[in-house]
Amino acid sequence: MSGARLTDLVAGLPATVPFVGPEAQQRTSGRTFRARLGANESVFGPSPRAVAAMAAAASDAWMYGDSESHDLRAALAAHHGVTPAHIAVGEGIDGLLGNLVRLVVAPGDRVVTSAGAYPTFNYHVAGFGGDLVRVPFAGVHEDIEALLHAAPGAKLLYLSNPDNPMASWHPAAVIEAMLDRVPDGTLLVLDEAYADFAPAGAIPEINADDPRVIRLRTFSKAHGLAGARVGYAIAAPGLVAAFDRIRNHFGMTRMSQAGALAALHDTGWLAQVVTQVAEGRARLAAIAAENGLAALPSATNFVAIDCGRDGDFARAVLRELIARDVFVRMPGVAPLDRCIRVSVGRPPDLDVFAEVLPQALAAALTQR
Amino acid sequence: MSGARLTDLVAGLPATVPFVGPEAQQRTSGRTFRARLGANESVFGPSPRAVAAMAAAASDAWMYGDSESHDLRAALAAHHGVTPAHIAVGEGIDGLLGNLVRLVVAPGDRVVTSAGAYPTFNYHVAGFGGDLVRVPFAGVHEDIEALLHAAPGAKLLYLSNPDNPMASWHPAAVIEAMLDRVPDGTLLVLDEAYADFAPAGAIPEINADDPRVIRLRTFSKAHGLAGARVGYAIAAPGLVAAFDRIRNHFGMTRMSQAGALAALHDTGWLAQVVTQVAEGRARLAAIAAENGLAALPSATNFVAIDCGRDGDFARAVLRELIARDVFVRMPGVAPLDRCIRVSVGRPPDLDVFAEVLPQALAAALTQR
Repeated sequence: MSGARLTDLVAGLPATVPFVGPEAQQRTSGRTFRARLGANESVFGPSPRAVAAMAAAASDAWMYGDSESHDLRAALAAHHGVTPAHIAVGEGIDGLLGNLVRLVVAPGDRVVTSAGAYPTFNYHVAGFGGDLVRVPFAGVHEDIEALLHAAPGAKLLYLSNPDNPMASWHPAAVIEAMLDRVPDGTLLVLDEAYADFAPAGAIPEINADDPRVIRLRTFSKAHGLAGARVGYAIAAPGLVAAFDRIRNHFGMTRMSQAGALAALHDTGWLAQVVTQVAEGRARLAAIAAENGLAALPSATNFVAIDCGRDGDFARAVLRELIARDVFVRMPGVAPLDRCIRVSVGRPPDLDVFAEVLPQALAAALTQR
Repeated sequence: MSGARLTDLVAGLPATVPFVGPEAQQRTSGRTFRARLGANESVFGPSPRAVAAMAAAASDAWMYGDSESHDLRAALAAHHGVTPAHIAVGEGIDGLLGNLVRLVVAPGDRVVTSAGAYPTFNYHVAGFGGDLVRVPFAGVHEDIEALLHAAPGAKLLYLSNPDNPMASWHPAAVIEAMLDRVPDGTLLVLDEAYADFAPAGAIPEINADDPRVIRLRTFSKAHGLAGARVGYAIAAPGLVAAFDRIRNHFGMTRMSQAGALAALHDTGWLAQVVTQVAEGRARLAAIAAENGLAALPSATNFVAIDCGRDGDFARAVLRELIARDVFVRMPGVAPLDRCIRVSVGRPPDLDVFAEVLPQALAAALTQR
């Protein structure tokens, strides 16, 4: 009667999850969020052409999706000026990160990231037994010198540019210079989930045949398709081919492939979303300023607002925002956790935030 | 400049994939299948209510799907008379099998299955370094005595009931008696993908709290949602909770969750599909008989047709069917590979098969 015996590795993993979703929070509270500004989703929605493509694909859902995501990979290759052999498609960057870690990280292997960077990457590293080394941010930036200093012997070196959760960015030239200093045997994992929002000069030119780096992109942010789970990697063909040895070959749904393909082609929609996001960032900065707080410069669809005190205070602000039905999140590590992280919303969403933030700040102050 | 170094385990994995999809076959041939009868998809399509639910969800695709698949798990729990804590939802049975193997199988751990049973399970076992032991079928049935004989020391013991690829089944009482003989420390993986098509008395009653077994179900077959990738497991809460330690938490798309929920509630659609499948099985048996071949009894939405000679002959028949634009598959291991495996189609699909089979048989005979 003993049943399954988990592997020693799995038995040692915590039961915690990287993120609790907003639906789960709503079920716990019994309330509904007035503004959903916590997961850096695109409140502006997907392209209507993507919606139509997904609706049309629904009738064909009796057929497994194309296991090679051929049409989507071909379109992405054309978009980036590479070949389909340079493109791996997966169930969001989350899914790709999990498979990447599995490909490269054996138990005990060293992996380097920044303290406070993407928790789901850390979750996957722990899940495959990697030895995760975290280096502090330098101010609001991931610290490239410190990352490189820690890199020797590491299998993976994670960097997000633009950064999550601080919304900062490094110029392309800095990333390109960093790449030349990545040690032999280390793969740079360049998470560019927010690339579509970045200012000119932030996204590096990298030869897709360069074996030292894998770039990760997603349809979850600017394309507004978080719920369709489509991410992709750009890397040298040898590494891309390795994903085929372990991935869930029919894991990309027919609707998701169709939606992403249509979204990629609707460049007009993407452009207006990027414009609206820029306007929303300015509005968030203004709201912060009205409350005596500083919004950090942002190259993403969210803004980190420095609450001006310590992590306990920012956590109190966050709690009070959520208690007032505004879904936001915040960095998990000091000193970044002096900030809350607010996704750009439509004007009505930001009206709610503007209404509630002073109340949340006042309530948090009474808890000092 | 060395880039990623794959783990020793991954470096030793073959580049082959368990299944080449029909779209990939079409791209290679430059032709379009007239009848798509190879992947045991439901040509009858999903419930119109599921299609409508997915189309409606497409507009909300900017939001990540509920990471807990709460509504779907609640509905499945009610359907099966268990609690949501007994239900794990994943990206098809394929995705769940991958995560299950990861939870339980460390490199070198013994796993037992039948020679010729589901290749994707074997792929996952290899992918996590398991030591896979295959026992022969007994005729057209998975050999329960042989499986139990090989089971001591195994972490997982795989059985499909009804069986894929032979479409046979064991009575519920046989499975229930088998469960009582599963060794301590071994988990029975009971793949019930085709349960909806099974005759009365084939599906066992199992206490969902029984730690010795995990049952796997899917929306890809009778519910016609292969392209939405929704599978689920029924198991004891401790094992279900373990999936949360490793899964891609936001991996279930919003459309897939909505479609599966609607499909589950459309019991009328399911019933008429099951009826049409039974009619199609009879038609396939008649077509086989007209060609002097024997169709095996089927508890699934496909029929194994014994081509009456050896594997080379059946492979020739398969090749000639595909050359005539009929997508079918066949078992990969002798002696099962004397058969081809034909999914039930609509009457026009089966008309095509009836037209082409005699030609394919004649062409295969000339290759003797």
